[in-house]
Amino acid sequence: MQALDAKDLGRALCIITGASRGFGRTTAIQISELVKPKSVLVLAARNVEDLRMLQADLAASKAGKAGVVFEYVVADLGVKEGVECVVKAIKLKSSEDFDHLILVNNAGSLGALRYARTFTDMSEVDSYMSFNLSSPICLTACVLEAFPRREGLRRTVVNVSSLCGLEPFLSWGLYCSGKAARDMMFRVLAKEDPDIRVLSYSPGPLDTGMQEEARTLTADNSLRNTFTDMFTKGQLLTCEASCAKLMMLLLKDEYTSGAHIDFYEI
Amino acid sequence: MQALDAKDLGRALCIITGASRGFGRTTAIQISELVKPKSVLVLAARNVEDLRMLQADLAASKAGKAGVVFEYVVADLGVKEGVECVVKAIKLKSSEDFDHLILVNNAGSLGALRYARTFTDMSEVDSYMSFNLSSPICLTACVLEAFPRREGLRRTVVNVSSLCGLEPFLSWGLYCSGKAARDMMFRVLAKEDPDIRVLSYSPGPLDTGMQEEARTLTADNSLRNTFTDMFTKGQLLTCEASCAKLMMLLLKDEYTSGAHIDFYEI
Repeated sequence: MQALDAKDLGRALCIITGASRGFGRTTAIQISELVKPKSVLVLAARNVEDLRMLQADLAASKAGKAGVVFEYVVADLGVKEGVECVVKAIKLKSSEDFDHLILVNNAGSLGALRYARTFTDMSEVDSYMSFNLSSPICLTACVLEAFPRREGLRRTVVNVSSLCGLEPFLSWGLYCSGKAARDMMFRVLAKEDPDIRVLSYSPGPLDTGMQEEARTLTADNSLRNTFTDMFTKGQLLTCEASCAKLMMLLLKDEYTSGAHIDFYEI
Repeated sequence: MQALDAKDLGRALCIITGASRGFGRTTAIQISELVKPKSVLVLAARNVEDLRMLQADLAASKAGKAGVVFEYVVADLGVKEGVECVVKAIKLKSSEDFDHLILVNNAGSLGALRYARTFTDMSEVDSYMSFNLSSPICLTACVLEAFPRREGLRRTVVNVSSLCGLEPFLSWGLYCSGKAARDMMFRVLAKEDPDIRVLSYSPGPLDTGMQEEARTLTADNSLRNTFTDMFTKGQLLTCEASCAKLMMLLLKDEYTSGAHIDFYEI
């Protein structure tokens, strides 16, 4: 456990999925400001252009100039090969070079925002669960295997979750189920390996592309209107504000491992 | 809503998955005793021999003699084609012939009973989730589509769940995640379609082949010993006793739609 006044996350190897945009991008930026020089951030996402821009921005930042290293991996985490690409990049690193391993399972998609009774196509559900459930489960297992328990190495796994993992939302069955399953797998992991710090963080309603999808594509009228209202009334959170709370949680390191913690709870 | 003293489940079309053995088999038997003549039970499972025997037993039973019809579909619900086979059989039926549609999503598997950190193979997780999550979601959607809302037709969907859908069990990550995801999808369905009666029933620790798997293959020593103790001390439930409570819930029809109800709660 870190001291309460910890000011940094150590010399860290951080893997962030879905890093090119939205909450993942902000996480990359904010983590880069909290790790020690010679830390390495591995940024995974599908879009090479977005990743290149992020890498350039980070390399030119204060953290980059202080010696934090930024790498990116172009990978579609919806397929086995994508996960393997990220794992390959991780395996090139030596555990001895770091005192903190941080994996942020941020990548995710809303999937079709339709009513549960319409999911008649098994390939659609399979494909959704592959990207949103199997992929973070397997990436986490591979990363933990590549960086096994070692004296002097802290290991932290973040699951970017949602209130939808706890409560049913109309026409959001895929997203709710996927998040519920992820939360549970990470609760199991936390219980199995008390030396690993596991956090399911629910970032709240963020002003991102995903929320735009939510307020335009949600099949349920009432829920769609709620999202539109939140947007027009300026009630959406910035990624910066939400991510700052996640960083505070990681720095304080006092959360119960496996817990689901919501932006609004802290 | 049924009257409190309902003595039967109506003239029903019942689809039961994983019907050839264990809890599914018992459910088929007990439901057959509660439906009216000319009801049809469609029994789905992989093993044709087991299905034939069950069909023969049921045909020779009091229910069979009274005119309840038993059909079986040999299908592997882990693949799209399996779900399609069951749906094909259902689509041959006419909604007008029934006043109650009952789907019991019972089929399921424990999967590998290993620690979460060992699930490095995405195909293994994909395949588990396909059978245990995508398949009941899609079968439910297909059945509801084939039998849309109609005056005079009650529709009931049962999700055979587990305490593992609520609480993490060591080395049971796949099973726990799958059940958590199923529970959530059925909570969403219940909220979306208040006219459908949705029940996640947790049958308790049953003296079945699945429990034998649990007490021999569970990676976690302590949990494995707990299962062995329960077995040797005769603490496992019979399928009959647990299924009787499910039948009581269905007959009374007073549960909150979408609720997770455990054998020990009632």
